[in-house]
Amino acid sequence: MSFQGEQHPGVQAPTAESHGFRLNHTMLRIKDPERALAFYTRVFGMRVLRRLDFEEMQFSLYFLARPEAGEQIPEASDERTAWTFDQRGVLELTHNWGTETQDDFAYHDGNADPQGFGHICFSVPDLAAAEAWFDANEVEFVKRADQGKMKDVVFVKDADGYWIEVVEAARMAGKGD
Amino acid sequence: MSFQGEQHPGVQAPTAESHGFRLNHTMLRIKDPERALAFYTRVFGMRVLRRLDFEEMQFSLYFLARPEAGEQIPEASDERTAWTFDQRGVLELTHNWGTETQDDFAYHDGNADPQGFGHICFSVPDLAAAEAWFDANEVEFVKRADQGKMKDVVFVKDADGYWIEVVEAARMAGKGD
Repeated sequence: MSFQGEQHPGVQAPTAESHGFRLNHTMLRIKDPERALAFYTRVFGMRVLRRLDFEEMQFSLYFLARPEAGEQIPEASDERTAWTFDQRGVLELTHNWGTETQDDFAYHDGNADPQGFGHICFSVPDLAAAEAWFDANEVEFVKRADQGKMKDVVFVKDADGYWIEVVEAARMAGKGD
Repeated sequence: MSFQGEQHPGVQAPTAESHGFRLNHTMLRIKDPERALAFYTRVFGMRVLRRLDFEEMQFSLYFLARPEAGEQIPEASDERTAWTFDQRGVLELTHNWGTETQDDFAYHDGNADPQGFGHICFSVPDLAAAEAWFDANEVEFVKRADQGKMKDVVFVKDADGYWIEVVEAARMAGKGD
């Protein structure tokens, strides 16, 4: 199961038991859905596939994706829920009700201590155009493509301060030693 | 851009500037690549698409995906790198060299305080079979499908303690109020 000349520690060949497993989504907690949804729909062109509210536990879940050209999303809500959980590249945003009105409330981005989660990443067709688009929307940069040791890689912050890496796939060949 | 009867705060219609943007990957830091790669390749059937080493900065990046049936992954490494960054549903594991030998070293899972990132999620064709498979591999459960308020949803821990949600898409219809 390795590519030519590549060996990695610990790797095992997949077995039949994991057939059909699919990496569906990543969940991030957000303070204020209005700000987070404005950011992801406006700047990254995402669409809210589904919102699930849980009154008893006082939270809402927003499932977002950036639909591909020609992709058909079911209108009926139950069918759309099943469809949402059958995709790749979904972002789940969790809103615990009331955090949006607490002045001193903020989530942890995972890059300050204690570290863990690092970022999500979007690939884009044109990195320079994406940088200009982020500037036009006053998006905060962690680094631009020409800054730091990792050239051709952009990092911006979302509305909660989580890092988003932005790359152009064709410019990533040749990275690493 | 809303589905029938659904309105969400802050949502804006996507514009041409975000055409072709694609949610490519999520990055998690790992303590020990041998343990993390054994876990994700064995239990979730993922494949290491690409490893990038950075000698000067003393870290390695492992990009993993669960290829779909019939998907052709390029063998040539530069072409494979570009391909990797053009996909959805990729998991990037970052290994800062040396952490694997530090007994007291552990990353933060984002669910203990301070909270932020919550989990990644796999959808699977058969949730009961997946639970049995996790048991056969001695995977640690956070909750099983029949436990807690959120039925039909499984949470397990990966080799670093990050939470992985596991769902069967067809069983998610009807969730939420």
